[in-house]
Amino acid sequence: MSEAAYVAVDWGTSSFRLWLIDRAGKVLGERRSDEGMMAAGKVGFAAVLQSHLDAVSAARSLPVIICGMAGARQGWVEAGYVDTPAPLASVLKQAVTVPGQERDIRILPGIARRDKAPDVMRGEETQLLGALGLDAAGDTLVCMPGTHSKWVSMHGGTVERFATFMTGELFGAVSRETILSHAVAGADEAQDVDAFKSAVIDAFQRPALTANLLFQVRSGQLLHGGTASAAREKISGTLIGLELAGGLAGEVPKAGITLVASGRLQTLYQLAFDTTAISVRTIGAEEAVRRGLSMAAAAIWSV
Amino acid sequence: MSEAAYVAVDWGTSSFRLWLIDRAGKVLGERRSDEGMMAAGKVGFAAVLQSHLDAVSAARSLPVIICGMAGARQGWVEAGYVDTPAPLASVLKQAVTVPGQERDIRILPGIARRDKAPDVMRGEETQLLGALGLDAAGDTLVCMPGTHSKWVSMHGGTVERFATFMTGELFGAVSRETILSHAVAGADEAQDVDAFKSAVIDAFQRPALTANLLFQVRSGQLLHGGTASAAREKISGTLIGLELAGGLAGEVPKAGITLVASGRLQTLYQLAFDTTAISVRTIGAEEAVRRGLSMAAAAIWSV
Repeated sequence: MSEAAYVAVDWGTSSFRLWLIDRAGKVLGERRSDEGMMAAGKVGFAAVLQSHLDAVSAARSLPVIICGMAGARQGWVEAGYVDTPAPLASVLKQAVTVPGQERDIRILPGIARRDKAPDVMRGEETQLLGALGLDAAGDTLVCMPGTHSKWVSMHGGTVERFATFMTGELFGAVSRETILSHAVAGADEAQDVDAFKSAVIDAFQRPALTANLLFQVRSGQLLHGGTASAAREKISGTLIGLELAGGLAGEVPKAGITLVASGRLQTLYQLAFDTTAISVRTIGAEEAVRRGLSMAAAAIWSV
Repeated sequence: MSEAAYVAVDWGTSSFRLWLIDRAGKVLGERRSDEGMMAAGKVGFAAVLQSHLDAVSAARSLPVIICGMAGARQGWVEAGYVDTPAPLASVLKQAVTVPGQERDIRILPGIARRDKAPDVMRGEETQLLGALGLDAAGDTLVCMPGTHSKWVSMHGGTVERFATFMTGELFGAVSRETILSHAVAGADEAQDVDAFKSAVIDAFQRPALTANLLFQVRSGQLLHGGTASAAREKISGTLIGLELAGGLAGEVPKAGITLVASGRLQTLYQLAFDTTAISVRTIGAEEAVRRGLSMAAAAIWSV
């Protein structure tokens, strides 16, 4: 077995992922937990990190590179922001060292947009780094779905501007905390692709009707019947269709679209883009963030 | 003091209002409570009604006319729907008698739209009756704001079609159950008219951006500062601007718009319409529903 060179951590609001990586970029060990910023803020970030380092038997001298909400004001150590237009290379250069630690621990900054459409990202800048690299040529629009989806306009290796759509969080709030909770009660895992696709189309074509299309999930079930699973897919499709309409702002960029997503979100968003006849290049989000962290480690420690 | 002729009840999902009314339409007594359908379903509708009848000393022979969710399937007695296109006169004719009661108690039906945009209303049909009357001439678009706002296309005294926008419920879910709860935490009653108006305009002009405009409430506060009250007004303005964009579907009808609303909702929606330079005729919602119930009582019992 090769020797570990550094540890990479993606520390989000509600999730924690750690990889033990060798000089060639090979993953030697991995940890996942729900000790995100919210949970770790109570227990202590140092203690949470150490427990996972122990679990993969990381040597005391191994450096750790971190991205995500651990660098927020309410996180471990505030890592600030690089302002747009933000070259991804600047992100690597502005990592903040966590003080008072035995080992070298650095947290990457986020990116802020401070104009009339203020916005922030933490973690996605590292995904972008891994997905596109430092020397990307040309323009691309990057869609990064999630609780807070990011749509990023890239020019070469620079983030020109970006916008956050709180699609995932709206889905949760609408499904659980409104009358639609009755419509989705007891939904099983069965996918209803047709329900999802027609909801995407409706919201994409007439986003102004979103608050009505959502209500129709309930009234349609009442008057025409339909399963709880179909109701859930309609809510999901409506909110993703709304996001696509807003993210594309009425036109598909010539430069093309890159979808950075994994798992179920990748499946859903690919289906949504297909439904609206928009072609995308897809890159796995998990691999992207790990690759981005490796690029940062290489830049900082020459590993 | 004149003699009571009948009792009128507006029985909604979460509210109960009762009026004791004489032959001239004058209100002799009034009751308000939060014993809506949800609460009354547990205690029993008959018991809730009787307690309020006792409180206004209603004679045992007085008839009671009811509109709203008490006529829903999960209500007291199902009162069905009149399907669109629905003459308001049909609503009066299809009141359902509550069986097994000492006094004559009737519940008015709702209206259903059973086409590709399925929708239902219960209670608003009675407001429409009181606001416009049976013999309204010409066309009008009626906006009835609420937890579930209704936009109704009237042709004379007939409901041609209508759409529900779950604006009020979205406001609650988004303010309480998402990251925006941090932005509005500690908001006082202070109104921020400018924040509200600019949010209305933004969402009205670019409804596709709604999920992003909502996130900006948080990111804007983070980067540019701002009060919790301003954040609340921005959420409210964004969701009302979205509703106006959808309700108007891109054009203001020549026939004009009627706003049926009371209290704070009347103030907010009037301001929203003003902001988008759309003129409306405003009718108080409380008076409208009472007048509608009186029209039904007159039609049924010749009182």
